[in-house]
Amino acid sequence: MSQLLVVRASGHAGDQQRRYPRWELSNSELQRQLENGVGGVILLGGTATELQQRCRTLRAWAADDDLLLCADVEEGVGQRFEGATWLVPPLALGRLHGHNPAAAIRFAERYGRCTADQARRCGLNWVLAPVCDVNSNPANPVINVRAWGQAPEAAGALAEAFQRGLQAGGVLGCAKHFPGHGDTAQDSHLELPVLAHARERLEQLELKPFRRLIAAGVESVMTAHLLIPALDAERPATLSSKVLTDLLRVSLDFQGLIVTDALVMEAITGLVGPGEAAVQAFEAGADLILMPADADEAINAVCAALASGRLPASRLEQSLQRRREALQRCRERQRQNRTASTAPSPPDAAETAAETAEEHQLALELVGATLEVQGATPVDAPAGGGVTLIRVDGVLACPFLRPEAPAISWPARRGFRPILCHELGISPWHDPPQADHPLALDRLGEGPVLLQLFLRGNPFRAGRDRDDPWPAAIRQLLALNRLAGLAVYGCPYRWESLRALLPSSIPAAYSPGQMAEAQQMLMGRLLGEEHMLELGGEFTD
Amino acid sequence: MSQLLVVRASGHAGDQQRRYPRWELSNSELQRQLENGVGGVILLGGTATELQQRCRTLRAWAADDDLLLCADVEEGVGQRFEGATWLVPPLALGRLHGHNPAAAIRFAERYGRCTADQARRCGLNWVLAPVCDVNSNPANPVINVRAWGQAPEAAGALAEAFQRGLQAGGVLGCAKHFPGHGDTAQDSHLELPVLAHARERLEQLELKPFRRLIAAGVESVMTAHLLIPALDAERPATLSSKVLTDLLRVSLDFQGLIVTDALVMEAITGLVGPGEAAVQAFEAGADLILMPADADEAINAVCAALASGRLPASRLEQSLQRRREALQRCRERQRQNRTASTAPSPPDAAETAAETAEEHQLALELVGATLEVQGATPVDAPAGGGVTLIRVDGVLACPFLRPEAPAISWPARRGFRPILCHELGISPWHDPPQADHPLALDRLGEGPVLLQLFLRGNPFRAGRDRDDPWPAAIRQLLALNRLAGLAVYGCPYRWESLRALLPSSIPAAYSPGQMAEAQQMLMGRLLGEEHMLELGGEFTD
Repeated sequence: MSQLLVVRASGHAGDQQRRYPRWELSNSELQRQLENGVGGVILLGGTATELQQRCRTLRAWAADDDLLLCADVEEGVGQRFEGATWLVPPLALGRLHGHNPAAAIRFAERYGRCTADQARRCGLNWVLAPVCDVNSNPANPVINVRAWGQAPEAAGALAEAFQRGLQAGGVLGCAKHFPGHGDTAQDSHLELPVLAHARERLEQLELKPFRRLIAAGVESVMTAHLLIPALDAERPATLSSKVLTDLLRVSLDFQGLIVTDALVMEAITGLVGPGEAAVQAFEAGADLILMPADADEAINAVCAALASGRLPASRLEQSLQRRREALQRCRERQRQNRTASTAPSPPDAAETAAETAEEHQLALELVGATLEVQGATPVDAPAGGGVTLIRVDGVLACPFLRPEAPAISWPARRGFRPILCHELGISPWHDPPQADHPLALDRLGEGPVLLQLFLRGNPFRAGRDRDDPWPAAIRQLLALNRLAGLAVYGCPYRWESLRALLPSSIPAAYSPGQMAEAQQMLMGRLLGEEHMLELGGEFTD
Repeated sequence: MSQLLVVRASGHAGDQQRRYPRWELSNSELQRQLENGVGGVILLGGTATELQQRCRTLRAWAADDDLLLCADVEEGVGQRFEGATWLVPPLALGRLHGHNPAAAIRFAERYGRCTADQARRCGLNWVLAPVCDVNSNPANPVINVRAWGQAPEAAGALAEAFQRGLQAGGVLGCAKHFPGHGDTAQDSHLELPVLAHARERLEQLELKPFRRLIAAGVESVMTAHLLIPALDAERPATLSSKVLTDLLRVSLDFQGLIVTDALVMEAITGLVGPGEAAVQAFEAGADLILMPADADEAINAVCAALASGRLPASRLEQSLQRRREALQRCRERQRQNRTASTAPSPPDAAETAAETAEEHQLALELVGATLEVQGATPVDAPAGGGVTLIRVDGVLACPFLRPEAPAISWPARRGFRPILCHELGISPWHDPPQADHPLALDRLGEGPVLLQLFLRGNPFRAGRDRDDPWPAAIRQLLALNRLAGLAVYGCPYRWESLRALLPSSIPAAYSPGQMAEAQQMLMGRLLGEEHMLELGGEFTD
């Protein structure tokens, strides 16, 4: 039954390179587990090329020919693995769906195809997406821009189109997080959220995208670490047979793989030990266990439960059979793809993990279609120099801010000196706080201020910026006639609340994406230099 | 003759990933040049695994079986390519050589062997090291910690030991920058420095390490972009037959490859165009042209010079012959290595670009042997909390500061809130400057201050921190009884000048290295927690 475990590994080759040695198995441990039959690995960290090499190594170590190799690549493979394509977050298409549903659906299918093609070239066969949660709660710290919509229709239609793209690309998909994580204000990485809705409301909202994806043949469904008293007053969905078996397997008639969300998350480890969590998940109806807090303990506990009769052998036999069928379907699709492709491929095409020109084009089109601009562009160049205050989570190892990033270099060439503002820097705020003029302007210097806010409701990061008084700072700068412009990258809710404060004389723009392409297009519009030359960085030895 | 060109490429697979598109050829351009016979590539950027994949691709594109693939990996392959080993800079061993020459020489040989083994596993066959410049000028903005010594004996002995390690590892070495770049205060990336010494002084100092390396059989010598009136009043060394032919080839009897430093550097492009630079370099006696500003122009100009008789065909025939001989020697050594190795290698060993346990051990030993500590350790934990002010060049994409870096996380666990101070952040200095108390302490908050200065005389970066008044800041904190301790990572000259300001009650430490291992060992000593647990980062979705 160890085939039913999915353990976590770094995408880097070396043990020393692991970013999270607490969660990521060492190579010797990983090799041992795979030789002993562990059947799946979830990867995080490293570049696309490293991932490709890593998948080869893992397959060579595995006892099982049919290793499941997966990653949380919800925004394209480039979200997690540099060198592949990073697409604007799904909620950007949910927003586009509001006024142009046909375009949004076409984009979502290409989004899925791009993700699948790159995942497959890197060596993955299972994409842990689409998120099927309806982000009906704008304060949601976990789902937020990862969702495909704020209403069930858009979320379902777009997630289904994405899944079509995945299938065409020959990888397995995963609808998550069942029965719906969109209306929570707690972070299940840290605690167990409670969803207090009645069954009828769940049917009307949360369950709709999942029903749609099941009808469309999604190969797996991931469970949520949520307590939903209307369904099961005692156990979180992940460990509840009422949710996984009665609702998902029987009522929704899902015949594919049910996979738990990561069992190392506090929402589960705060309730039960690693062995018991695995047994309860299988009892509840799960087929695959993702990231058990301790793989050996999980295996031992499940074996003991089989021996004692607590867990019937037939229960796990069904899971193994579903796993075989899913992998079989994946192989068949890849074979069909190869047969269908008539274009001769260059000798090293199969080798390339990086993005194709078409895939890069999709990333650019998505940025273009979801960019929003208001006010009197372009931003005036500051006569005596000014400042661009760039607010960012996590300035170190920031995937979208390099020294030559357009958000830094483009305004700098116009006379706006870049100042980064982040949790490890000197604070731009008065201490003690001053409600009406929160910014300590003496720390920024003279001249107009071009605000650039990278804000995104991310797990673990959502809370960090909640207390930053950006609305008051905008009013302060407006009162002093020192606001040159506003750029928001990421969260649409923050954009909506801040844009409403601006008079039409102030240029402002929003992109759901934070990557270099989004910065470039947004800055091009804001500074009135759509055709600004792409300049390289300085020469280094 | 296009075989005699070495062009620059990114180590990344995709065109979009290039950091310096101005200097790095696109893939289609690179493929065209290699198919047309260009014989060498210098690589920068990407991880060790990406480099390995990249070298395979380049070899597949090349018309020539014997492609020269090189990189500026002066401090181990990990200095440039993440995942390989990053060693303390050479000058650290020059410093150790002062009191323990035998240990320093043993280390230097292992340093070379480690660099060669990793370079070879990544697919490189030519290491652009050792630096043979004697860093006799502490204000040198280009060489600095890259040199093996401040005096010719240490520099020569250590560079020779390093070169022995390279040879044992089966790659070509390169003694640079001839006739010696150690006593310059200008940056040749930006202008042409002048070295005003007489020939006798050059013999006594600059030339000594080169003579030693030539006697030891170094396979190539790289020229310096320097004007040395005592040798040639008109032309920089790179374009001077008096320097390259009369001095290096004839007087020093060097029979190996003479390669120019990068011809795109301002010191050359400010003088002559790309075609003429290549012709003059060959005329002067160079065998290989590194990074011509325009490869096609260089090839056309050299062909025209051959056709007109300005450049005799025999001149380039000799160069091609030397290139063949060097590659032949490299292949033979690698064959001998394989024969000599009797240990059975695991099936994927040849595949691994990452570091071995022994190589990581060398990195740790080097950090341990070059760490310096003074004053009353450990640092007192601040009762009411304190601050660790971390000064760093280039906070974005910083190769040694990740969120979990020991310089950040270890003091934080002791109650020192980390504040990063860098050129893109809010300044910690009073504006206008205040000579006696330069730090604007109201921006840092209350409590003792643990200073951590990452300072390194790097090209392009040397000047950036020159005006930071650290001595005055240290006196300011001492006067307020708020200096908790001092850590300097990198430049020994800055450490020497700052440590002298400290009373023996203040704990202070220095490491020549800036990498995580250096931070960990230094912080362990400073905080009195040599055995501090290695904690992983937080869990991410």
